[in-house]
Amino acid sequence: MAEKKLVESITSMDVDFAQWYTDVVRKAELADYSGVKGCMIIRPYGYAIWENIQKDLDARFKALGHENVYMPLFIPESLLQKEKDHVEGFAPECAWVTFGGGNQLSERLAVRPTSETLFCEHFRSIIHSYRDLPKLYNQWVNVVRWEKTTRPFLRTSEFLWQEGHTMHATEEEAREEVLRMLKVYEDFYLETLAIPAVTGRKTEKEKFAGAVETYTIEPMMHNGVALQGGTSHYFGDGFARAFDITFTDKDNTIRYPHQTSWGVSTRMIGAIIMTHGDDNGLILPPKVAPVQVAIIPVQMHKEGVLEKAREVADALRAAGLRVKVDESDNSPGWKFAEYEMKGVPVRLELGPRDIQNGSCVLVSRATGEKTVVSLDGLAASVQEALDGVHNALVERVRKNLAAKTFTATTFDEFLDHAANHPGFIKAMWCGDAACEEKVKDATGGVKSRCIPFEEEQLSPVCVCCGRPAKHMLVWGRQY
Amino acid sequence: MAEKKLVESITSMDVDFAQWYTDVVRKAELADYSGVKGCMIIRPYGYAIWENIQKDLDARFKALGHENVYMPLFIPESLLQKEKDHVEGFAPECAWVTFGGGNQLSERLAVRPTSETLFCEHFRSIIHSYRDLPKLYNQWVNVVRWEKTTRPFLRTSEFLWQEGHTMHATEEEAREEVLRMLKVYEDFYLETLAIPAVTGRKTEKEKFAGAVETYTIEPMMHNGVALQGGTSHYFGDGFARAFDITFTDKDNTIRYPHQTSWGVSTRMIGAIIMTHGDDNGLILPPKVAPVQVAIIPVQMHKEGVLEKAREVADALRAAGLRVKVDESDNSPGWKFAEYEMKGVPVRLELGPRDIQNGSCVLVSRATGEKTVVSLDGLAASVQEALDGVHNALVERVRKNLAAKTFTATTFDEFLDHAANHPGFIKAMWCGDAACEEKVKDATGGVKSRCIPFEEEQLSPVCVCCGRPAKHMLVWGRQY
Repeated sequence: MAEKKLVESITSMDVDFAQWYTDVVRKAELADYSGVKGCMIIRPYGYAIWENIQKDLDARFKALGHENVYMPLFIPESLLQKEKDHVEGFAPECAWVTFGGGNQLSERLAVRPTSETLFCEHFRSIIHSYRDLPKLYNQWVNVVRWEKTTRPFLRTSEFLWQEGHTMHATEEEAREEVLRMLKVYEDFYLETLAIPAVTGRKTEKEKFAGAVETYTIEPMMHNGVALQGGTSHYFGDGFARAFDITFTDKDNTIRYPHQTSWGVSTRMIGAIIMTHGDDNGLILPPKVAPVQVAIIPVQMHKEGVLEKAREVADALRAAGLRVKVDESDNSPGWKFAEYEMKGVPVRLELGPRDIQNGSCVLVSRATGEKTVVSLDGLAASVQEALDGVHNALVERVRKNLAAKTFTATTFDEFLDHAANHPGFIKAMWCGDAACEEKVKDATGGVKSRCIPFEEEQLSPVCVCCGRPAKHMLVWGRQY
Repeated sequence: MAEKKLVESITSMDVDFAQWYTDVVRKAELADYSGVKGCMIIRPYGYAIWENIQKDLDARFKALGHENVYMPLFIPESLLQKEKDHVEGFAPECAWVTFGGGNQLSERLAVRPTSETLFCEHFRSIIHSYRDLPKLYNQWVNVVRWEKTTRPFLRTSEFLWQEGHTMHATEEEAREEVLRMLKVYEDFYLETLAIPAVTGRKTEKEKFAGAVETYTIEPMMHNGVALQGGTSHYFGDGFARAFDITFTDKDNTIRYPHQTSWGVSTRMIGAIIMTHGDDNGLILPPKVAPVQVAIIPVQMHKEGVLEKAREVADALRAAGLRVKVDESDNSPGWKFAEYEMKGVPVRLELGPRDIQNGSCVLVSRATGEKTVVSLDGLAASVQEALDGVHNALVERVRKNLAAKTFTATTFDEFLDHAANHPGFIKAMWCGDAACEEKVKDATGGVKSRCIPFEEEQLSPVCVCCGRPAKHMLVWGRQY
């Protein structure tokens, strides 16, 4: 009954999605609360997912010529204030260092909430000529944004992320970079995290503090709620002017360079949990799963079973797979439940009879399907099963997204969806932030997610005010 | 003359070692100063060295069963105060956050100077039984220790490091871990950084705040000054008692676990610069060099030269080497000087005549030796040359260490070495911290580096006070 206890200890997602999320984070040992308000401890299993995410994304960045750097943790208040919109957006959520080495500081230091200002200061000292451009920089760091209510991975006062910061000679090149990096995120979400998602441009109201334009990727969680999954910003030359960054162009004119930044964070682990998980726990996309294959020896103490399990594991590892043999004294049933909870994509059950038959039982975490597979050529079967898990997850997310995306052409219809149909709402919009405000108030929190790249002409008028429509928006509640 | 300008712009190490160091850091584009007091910007070339260091060390840790985690950046003041010696050691150099989200905090938060207290708090919540032990954790993070005078990599208010934190059921096992991890550092310094170094135990006076024992690795820089290159601490159960961490042992008794921590930091980049560099700039150990081979096309615009250079580069990359072809418009001479400055271990010169002969010129950054090598089987020749650079560096450091290590059996002799012979001094010691203090005062800063694992019996009495000797110490000035 041990396996029952393990599974029963998490709340069903249909009963209470928020509690289910918290239960999965704790039971799968992804993260823990700390005594520091709003800060989390990322446990080994959660951190190993982050390491796999980093490795994959970092290779994508470097393949496009980006270089990693490290900027200071602290931003002097005067530096943060150089770009007006930016400081207005971030100063209210900063943590401030006021004492250092036993003395009160003459100027407060913000713990970086994001690093545009630090990069600008550095760019100013290293960019002089068109030969110095483009600068394609990225850093993997911790940032702090003071939050009142926090949830592990989704919203924490400190989180880990990457922030890309680039400088270009022309607006055209900078705009290309912004869309190129959004595409990197979109590909990564689909190919690595198995999450197809909506992408598009943020409205003026929802864009990043200091940006000219913000592009976003907005995956939908299983319960129909959106998560802002990554953003890519075009800054024009606003920061360059504020920080006096100039370069001598080929024609000998002094110009301001054009800037971008783009980032994704440990929130992505929250997205993985909430898009793929089920009532048995986590389901990890195979590309980032710390353990891709769990081998459970059955009748473990019978002669030859453990030896065979280890032999099989070694063969799979040699094929490049991440494998764990569970040799603990827990019952096989307990182990099945444990690796389901931890979202291990493929489980292999191997007992004396299987060994006699030269086969084992392969179970997919995505579909629950059990197959008897031959131990000959097992690595290929397992790889196929892992691909199968990835594809099944993509398919499921795609279906969920389609099933929970609604269309509204009247405000009543919009309000009905907002109240009764959790998910995204596609509706036309006049371009006025006042309508976004009105929708948010009338629905208790539905906001514009983005102007998608592929807009449809659902109606000639704004769903909110009836004036001529400028864009189709995707709307939704968000984490 | 361009190449001359580049080289002339750095100070000779014999004229002013400190200025030479600063010049190399700037000219090789390893780091830059920031507007934030005491904090540095690690530039792409410097950060790439750090990434290679991380990758190598991380694999060594994981091979021994260590898991990576992430603990919060902030430590509430009350948590830091739980272990008396520890807080006394670190509180004076903490940076304190007092405001967050626009409000004054009810309790100050230290920006972590090290994370023993946070790990202890977490261990308390996850360690209950002997089955939960050992816990072998590590994290790669930034830490802050407020410094008055700072130098890039060597001493900065913020630096990057790894900190391992482990908990064990017995003292024996914990003590094994402490020495095992010191050995990992020693192997890494030798095998990867090409730096043979002195290892041993710190005296009571020099040990880490809160530790029972501290072990250290002490490489000697080219100028004879020591750098504390990494430490490994045994804590006993002191923190466990202070934090009330207990476990139920196999015999059902409640016990305190035994603890260790160990760390190395971005200081290691300072050690690389100062042990291997010369008046032409940096010399990088091949294992961590971001570019291992620089290919310089000669008469680049002659037909076929660039094509051949790229072909050669691709072949070397396919053999797993990190290669750069410099296709810029600078003269070959300028490029030679530039890659010497940047410490690239092997340079290949490839011109029309070389191509005709099916060969190229290979130059070792360690010895300056030029060899004509065949383009057939070039990867093997280059790998051999890289191994040659590594071995030459090891040999040179070993010679420097031997040449600058002196023996003193009388205090006069000791003072003479301290005043006139930069380097390490081996001398007997009574075990009393008062003698360490006296030596430091009399010499203007010579301190005990460590009690080496292999002590010699140089004299029966303490070099300072004449009382019976307990140990041989290695003494020296330090960064």
